[in-house]
Amino acid sequence: MKIAILGGTGDIGEGLALRLALKHDVIIGSRDEAKAKEAAENYNKVLKEHGRRGGIKGMSNPAATKSADVVVLAVKYDYMLSTIESIWDDLGRKIVITPIVPMSKTALCAYTPPEPGSASRQLCAVLPPEIRIVSTFHTLPAPRLADLSDPLGFDLIVCADDEEAKMIAMKLAEDLGGVRALDGGSLEEAKLVEALTPLLINLAIKNKMKPLSLKFL
Amino acid sequence: MKIAILGGTGDIGEGLALRLALKHDVIIGSRDEAKAKEAAENYNKVLKEHGRRGGIKGMSNPAATKSADVVVLAVKYDYMLSTIESIWDDLGRKIVITPIVPMSKTALCAYTPPEPGSASRQLCAVLPPEIRIVSTFHTLPAPRLADLSDPLGFDLIVCADDEEAKMIAMKLAEDLGGVRALDGGSLEEAKLVEALTPLLINLAIKNKMKPLSLKFL
Repeated sequence: MKIAILGGTGDIGEGLALRLALKHDVIIGSRDEAKAKEAAENYNKVLKEHGRRGGIKGMSNPAATKSADVVVLAVKYDYMLSTIESIWDDLGRKIVITPIVPMSKTALCAYTPPEPGSASRQLCAVLPPEIRIVSTFHTLPAPRLADLSDPLGFDLIVCADDEEAKMIAMKLAEDLGGVRALDGGSLEEAKLVEALTPLLINLAIKNKMKPLSLKFL
Repeated sequence: MKIAILGGTGDIGEGLALRLALKHDVIIGSRDEAKAKEAAENYNKVLKEHGRRGGIKGMSNPAATKSADVVVLAVKYDYMLSTIESIWDDLGRKIVITPIVPMSKTALCAYTPPEPGSASRQLCAVLPPEIRIVSTFHTLPAPRLADLSDPLGFDLIVCADDEEAKMIAMKLAEDLGGVRALDGGSLEEAKLVEALTPLLINLAIKNKMKPLSLKFL
């Protein structure tokens, strides 16, 4: 499968790219094409150090979107709408995966969803109905995801209104390795999953723990 | 420590009573004193079957509150304010633990917090400031808690504005056995924890799993 990771030059973009590249064709997207190419080169080096084939490409966000079957919006909430605008003409009928979490932070983090109830629902309101939106990847701790020797052992919750898109994203989640994908329901339920990210950050801060994820049992 | 579990005749009340009675003096409270006494008798039988001493008492909610150092509001959100009203004169300067989650359910569950942002914050607004409120126990699956042979293995998040009350509740959480208590911050952060309950219910429904709890790793 061809997967474009927009905002793939930083945060969870790196880990998603490295881990998905073991099984899929990955394209890093960035507003700055040169930055995307540089990140792709660096990620390919890491893969080769681990004895894996490289092959990650770097492109502008619109070009990455055009080349892909699935588009991951690995950008901060503040850039969600401008990123969508920049790739609008290239979205076709693709699957769009959103790990975006609207948050504010003072001493600790708070979940600050926009009017429609969640970032996922806001995307629904903005995008044409033929785009299938999947809400997942919110609870991946970036540094651990990017460390290919970390066995993870997490659960990832996946929400979508379209069942086929949900199944494809659940498979992608498990392709990260060491991840169990769980069905979280429709996009209406996505706010419960988006709200996990500030909780995980707060728990790590208050209990002086490394970046956290979670497992249901 | 003397612990009153109001609404202790059902749901997580049973498991809390059985497990906390192994280390503390537990009083079951109910609107109906006879029901409280009957539940206490049944729980003592279960404890004796497991070779433990009984000693759980049953009382009306106000009498249970009066006898206790710590009061657990193991009642549904709909009964939160009427329960508080009924024990108002007996609350003194006690610690009040709230596992209460405002939820609605159609096919799946939604978190439906009241105006101040959470049930915990609503309690804050209603109770006098000398009452120390602790928000925890939301993510305990009732049937597994009541099964003394279940090793649990969960994490429990504890939020409070008063640090001493938080420490006491974290110790109580770990006294359940097989539970690690984590500091979730202040009552401002409690909404992130209350929202876990509908998420856990939805995951169990959608993935056909037994009642779930969670662990951070």
